[in-house]
Amino acid sequence: MTRQQLVDQIFSKRSYLCVGLDTDNTKIPKHLLSTSDPVFEFNKQIIDATGDLCVSYKINTAFYEALGARGWESLEKTVNYIPHKHFKIADAKRGDIGNTSSQYARAFFDTLNFDAVTVTPYMGEDSIKPFLEYEGKWAIVLGLTSNGGARDFELQKFVTKTDSLDEGIHIEKHDVRFLYEMVLEKVSRWGSPDNLMFVIGATQPHEFDNIRQITPQHFYLVPGVGAQGGSLKEISEKAMINGTSTNAQCGILVNASRSIIYASDKENFAEEARNAAAQYQREMSSYL
Amino acid sequence: MTRQQLVDQIFSKRSYLCVGLDTDNTKIPKHLLSTSDPVFEFNKQIIDATGDLCVSYKINTAFYEALGARGWESLEKTVNYIPHKHFKIADAKRGDIGNTSSQYARAFFDTLNFDAVTVTPYMGEDSIKPFLEYEGKWAIVLGLTSNGGARDFELQKFVTKTDSLDEGIHIEKHDVRFLYEMVLEKVSRWGSPDNLMFVIGATQPHEFDNIRQITPQHFYLVPGVGAQGGSLKEISEKAMINGTSTNAQCGILVNASRSIIYASDKENFAEEARNAAAQYQREMSSYL
Repeated sequence: MTRQQLVDQIFSKRSYLCVGLDTDNTKIPKHLLSTSDPVFEFNKQIIDATGDLCVSYKINTAFYEALGARGWESLEKTVNYIPHKHFKIADAKRGDIGNTSSQYARAFFDTLNFDAVTVTPYMGEDSIKPFLEYEGKWAIVLGLTSNGGARDFELQKFVTKTDSLDEGIHIEKHDVRFLYEMVLEKVSRWGSPDNLMFVIGATQPHEFDNIRQITPQHFYLVPGVGAQGGSLKEISEKAMINGTSTNAQCGILVNASRSIIYASDKENFAEEARNAAAQYQREMSSYL
Repeated sequence: MTRQQLVDQIFSKRSYLCVGLDTDNTKIPKHLLSTSDPVFEFNKQIIDATGDLCVSYKINTAFYEALGARGWESLEKTVNYIPHKHFKIADAKRGDIGNTSSQYARAFFDTLNFDAVTVTPYMGEDSIKPFLEYEGKWAIVLGLTSNGGARDFELQKFVTKTDSLDEGIHIEKHDVRFLYEMVLEKVSRWGSPDNLMFVIGATQPHEFDNIRQITPQHFYLVPGVGAQGGSLKEISEKAMINGTSTNAQCGILVNASRSIIYASDKENFAEEARNAAAQYQREMSSYL
């Protein structure tokens, strides 16, 4: 999917909602457990109920892998069931040496028909580039994540020293930057706003101005509203790309998982999921 | 598997070889393609041919995921086929927020019977801890990897400032450290040498002295010999734990993938894989 197709969909639906299918077979309504594939049956009903309110679905691979090959089958059926127009994200946090990352890209872009994969940056350029080599596909690289552990490395400070000469005088300049800033700066040079997004947690609003300065044109995938406590209002105000009315970009996809898909554990779970998604969509419409 | 069981196996086989099953269905011998599951058939013959020469097998999940649910089935069959005594590593480079990492731990330790999973540290403590909560299971966290991209972040320098008072005088101390050093220091406090190892690339021998100082007791999983060019002699000399004859620990597992499993693409591939593994084992025996 191209950036323009995604932007068009956002403004036609007046929504930048991504519904996270973190489908846990111990949490889905009991009456589904007698079906042949409860995880897929659950996802199918969630997708049917929310499709017109969201622009994207995000499949968290961990929950499917926890069920083994059977779970991987439910994942395949789910990605094939998602309507063509939706932006399909494999939230897989993959990344390895080049020849292995190429296999992951093949897994999610060729074998499965995802539009995007989340990628972890620790191993550097050759671990990320294979995900950027597919026409119309996207890498969504971890920038500043929503969890408490973001403090351990992402928010650690680097000091970089640059030397220069100014009218013959030696100038030594020290820049202090967080690791996540270095990640945004470097990784954004390896791709473009047309094939690269960043994961930026909704629980880090104090950093949003700074993040937008470093990567003014990139889309962000923003988890952390709902169950993790981030504010949709705050991140929408701070993280959107400011465009003119004829060139509005939005620039964010906000993910909600548990607060939508587990809105109810009763037989009417899909209806309640729709109600929760509709609340997000109405609020998003007012910020666009 | 406990550390002592692993160490006992290393000294009884006189080998610290891990055979990497990066099984690529486009590279396996043609005569296997007519079998019902060529990837598993290939792995089965490699395991039969090398089992007495190695102490561990490492399954690189990317190559299996590239084949979809069918690949995940080959993976399940392979891990079930590996003899009980071998240390079974899922080379998966996983890591996500706590509740998602818990699902990955469930996938590899409960649903599949791996002894260890490789884990990426970027997202910090809550992304790693769920892998450390299983009795007899291991997290193998990325430290300094073997690929060129290690320069992009792992080998970037941090400056940390610590303030103290010495007889009333304010002391400001600046420490310059690589990111990977900070990872080793922090992560090693979250687990113990009994449930935590680190990935240290064989292509980084100049850092081995330093790495052993920071983590004197931890096992390392060392990729990068063979196809990637690292020297077995150099890493064995520099990275082993120096023990007494009654308390020798070895402290490294050296992985070779392509140089063993693709030693030949003919019908005698398993025999040639055995020969390649035997060469490693003989050399390892001389260093133990």
